[in-house]
Amino acid sequence: MYVAHVSEVPESNVTPDPLPPGKRATVRWVIAEEHGAPNFEMRVFHLDEGLTSEWHRHPWEHEEYVLTGHGTLRGETGETELEPGTVVLIAGGEMHQLRASRGEALEFICVVPRGTKEKAASPAR
Amino acid sequence: MYVAHVSEVPESNVTPDPLPPGKRATVRWVIAEEHGAPNFEMRVFHLDEGLTSEWHRHPWEHEEYVLTGHGTLRGETGETELEPGTVVLIAGGEMHQLRASRGEALEFICVVPRGTKEKAASPAR
Repeated sequence: MYVAHVSEVPESNVTPDPLPPGKRATVRWVIAEEHGAPNFEMRVFHLDEGLTSEWHRHPWEHEEYVLTGHGTLRGETGETELEPGTVVLIAGGEMHQLRASRGEALEFICVVPRGTKEKAASPAR
Repeated sequence: MYVAHVSEVPESNVTPDPLPPGKRATVRWVIAEEHGAPNFEMRVFHLDEGLTSEWHRHPWEHEEYVLTGHGTLRGETGETELEPGTVVLIAGGEMHQLRASRGEALEFICVVPRGTKEKAASPAR
């Protein structure tokens, strides 16, 4: 059994690109291979207001749960509003991007199959 | 892509046993096989104050994230306090039980491998 608090888990930047001063876009691998996760891994993302994840896709699915804040999910067929308690399944191969609304940070859980950490996603073309 | 709000997803009782009047112990399969989940399924549990899940085990793992409330996780080697933001990995085969503290409901996410819905867990002996 492994128990931790999200605040204790180291966070890393979502993107290597520079962000506006004082802004944060981070991911914490809260339940990962290194903790013994045998099949899937749980991450917690934080996007400061107005920030987005990349418009991208990859072969594996996402299962997401919005913890705090509001935002927008951009998919191949349009946009959907996000609020606390929104759940999302993004299939493998689907283009997607999340955006935090102005005025508040967006935090969400995102579960992926084990072993994707070192694999690069395909950005938009 | 599948998008829903947790409040829209039907809930079912965690246990067939009768509960104290007015008390709720429920699970919602928010991202499940029926929504297209290929590898793992996300549930959201609600335990009213003082209620517990069964003291039980099963061959598959749990990956949990506490959303609201406080409580206790009982494992094979002792008890751990739960608060919002606590994350837990329970390995397959480990005995476990969650309890909601007095005075508030405990809500948590619990992700499991796909296909466990119809399998019975082994209760304590």
